[in-house]
Amino acid sequence: MIKVGIIGVGTVGTSVVNILKDNQEIISARAGDEIVVKSGVVRDLSKDRGLDIILTDNADDILDDPEIDVVVELMGGVEDAFVVVKRALENGKAVVTANKALLAYHRYELQDMAGDLPFEYEASVAGGIPIINALRDGLSANHIKSIMGIMNGTCNYMLTKMINEGVAFDAILKEAQELGYAEADPTFDIGGFDAAHKLLILASIAYGIDAKPEDILIEGIQNVTQDDIAFAKEFGYSVKLLGIAKRVKNEVELRVHVALIDNSEMIAKIDGVMNGISVVGDKVGETLYYGPGAGGDATASAVIANIIDIARSGKSKPMLGFDKPLEKGLKLKPIDDIESKYYLRINVSDKAGVLSKITTIFATNNISIETILQRPSKDGSANLLISTHIAVEKDIQNMIKSIEELDFVNSKPVMIRIV
Amino acid sequence: MIKVGIIGVGTVGTSVVNILKDNQEIISARAGDEIVVKSGVVRDLSKDRGLDIILTDNADDILDDPEIDVVVELMGGVEDAFVVVKRALENGKAVVTANKALLAYHRYELQDMAGDLPFEYEASVAGGIPIINALRDGLSANHIKSIMGIMNGTCNYMLTKMINEGVAFDAILKEAQELGYAEADPTFDIGGFDAAHKLLILASIAYGIDAKPEDILIEGIQNVTQDDIAFAKEFGYSVKLLGIAKRVKNEVELRVHVALIDNSEMIAKIDGVMNGISVVGDKVGETLYYGPGAGGDATASAVIANIIDIARSGKSKPMLGFDKPLEKGLKLKPIDDIESKYYLRINVSDKAGVLSKITTIFATNNISIETILQRPSKDGSANLLISTHIAVEKDIQNMIKSIEELDFVNSKPVMIRIV
Repeated sequence: MIKVGIIGVGTVGTSVVNILKDNQEIISARAGDEIVVKSGVVRDLSKDRGLDIILTDNADDILDDPEIDVVVELMGGVEDAFVVVKRALENGKAVVTANKALLAYHRYELQDMAGDLPFEYEASVAGGIPIINALRDGLSANHIKSIMGIMNGTCNYMLTKMINEGVAFDAILKEAQELGYAEADPTFDIGGFDAAHKLLILASIAYGIDAKPEDILIEGIQNVTQDDIAFAKEFGYSVKLLGIAKRVKNEVELRVHVALIDNSEMIAKIDGVMNGISVVGDKVGETLYYGPGAGGDATASAVIANIIDIARSGKSKPMLGFDKPLEKGLKLKPIDDIESKYYLRINVSDKAGVLSKITTIFATNNISIETILQRPSKDGSANLLISTHIAVEKDIQNMIKSIEELDFVNSKPVMIRIV
Repeated sequence: MIKVGIIGVGTVGTSVVNILKDNQEIISARAGDEIVVKSGVVRDLSKDRGLDIILTDNADDILDDPEIDVVVELMGGVEDAFVVVKRALENGKAVVTANKALLAYHRYELQDMAGDLPFEYEASVAGGIPIINALRDGLSANHIKSIMGIMNGTCNYMLTKMINEGVAFDAILKEAQELGYAEADPTFDIGGFDAAHKLLILASIAYGIDAKPEDILIEGIQNVTQDDIAFAKEFGYSVKLLGIAKRVKNEVELRVHVALIDNSEMIAKIDGVMNGISVVGDKVGETLYYGPGAGGDATASAVIANIIDIARSGKSKPMLGFDKPLEKGLKLKPIDDIESKYYLRINVSDKAGVLSKITTIFATNNISIETILQRPSKDGSANLLISTHIAVEKDIQNMIKSIEELDFVNSKPVMIRIV
């Protein structure tokens, strides 16, 4: 019998207990053993949860319990969770976590500390989709060329609604909050930070590259408007928040930002709260994994899959999937050096000479224009909607600064990368 | 060092050798060990393959070689391959296979024979997509509600072309053969048998249900015409060859056939030679896995992933993913009892009373019509294009027999299930 202690019995923890009960027969047939939750840590002991487990408000009751084989960490947060999982490992317990933030900051230390003890985290990226499994174990023969993912259901839900219903960002946010798809303080999701944490985990498995959220480009969906969506529709693009890892020679690009992506791409077809991650390997080609990125049962499905794996296997595989440095000399590509196609929306006073000055600034910064549309705006100004050929991030940022200073430019140009 | 012997060095075997060389550093970092192909079995020793391994035409040279740790079976075929892998297991060697036909007929015996020895087969279903991994290890907490897959690239390539180019079946087949997407004798692929073998493997992992190809409904793509495709386009359907496993109470449906599937479904968007498999779990919901279903490198990617797994793990997991009977009392649903929506194309002489007689036969067989279109055909006859509400397979087959006998019906009605 495998005895489990859950630290943080919230939505996901409750689902873990319930699924282990509902699906007990098929789970034990697959695990080759009974899996039972013995105890769980909660903040509020007075709340009636209807769970048939020992509840405590003290994590030590689990961490120091010699009967507990597997600690499931569902606390969230970074440093307190780090203390907890470290103690679990020190006490010889296997760890299963759903905590992307913890791993965004401490995954390499945890891999070292885990040693031969199982440390699993399928639930930390893309909820119920077994993407860690696929990337670490299914595609292990490949050099990974790129990873591109829709990994935040809040953002994807909102962008899908904006595209399908033509409603403004603020209205969609309000609706998402009412439906529980966005938090009261939505910054972590709509600012792209949640997606960034998940991207870092995948990048470690693919490239062995250590980076923190502070090292990479993170931009959220807050500035997307219906003007941008109209442009996207006109030119056959979808609008998605993407986490991108891309290997270019000896450099790895890591970035999270809104992107225009051609409607013919599989990833462009992923809507609503669903997640999807495209992984391109040098030998296998393009693969894609789609499913629910969040939700109690979906996330618990991943947690329990990890526990079943622990029950089945004597020797655990290395946490991030490699035993020694994965690649020699791979470096994080500086944000300035990123190359991409770009879309820009520039609001100008409608006068003579505007186009001439703007296109000159593009040329001065070595940026070649692919398409240009001018549209009158309701207030008498004009919107210039421009897409470029491949350009360098630094040149684009310089161009935006120069354009911002022109007297007929009314607000900071909006830029969305085209992927 | 893990020493590998490949029995059947064709396209995939050659890719295995080459990828182990090309990606040697990253593979050994992930495996925690060197993986080396020592020898390979071929039929024609005189052919120069440019591979730096010992070539032999005698499988015993590998099966009886005490240095060989892992036997990779890439022979194809059923009974000879069965003899070979049995001997590999008897000699204490781990087995990795890409052979769907072997597993379609012998997977349960092989699971018993393998015992604690690793027996892996990721490459046998959907080429490079790690679907076995995902289904067996990623979704193990779920009762599987359904599996729906595009698992034959030949069929999907041809149907995609028929839809996009409006060309007839025979012309597309010829083109596919010229491009190497279809065999000289294409029956195995276009008849649905290849997809059926793969479906049976997935059904065993999901349901623990033993069935042979002869036990299940298998229909290929040979009868699809541009009339059917026109109907599909008009009503927003795509046309795909699907392998379907569906659990309804205590019965499991297993079937391979052409299907009309609504364009809004993710699986409908999978075109060309790519494969895609949708798996719905009772707790995780819908997940989908997409990628290349065939090709030397893509398939070898899966073979090598299995070898890396063998190198990493001491104790192997049960081959099909369960240690004891998975579900009690699950039975294969008789084909007659299958329930579905149906599309029918009936070619009739254009006379009075035709519609009345035909709709009466539908009603007599308890089949309710959802849509009906009548279109004149070039030769003066008319095509009736009908879609039904949910009906029972037995009733549909009876209805088709009755309609065939009507004097104004010019040929056997074409039926395509709507999924």
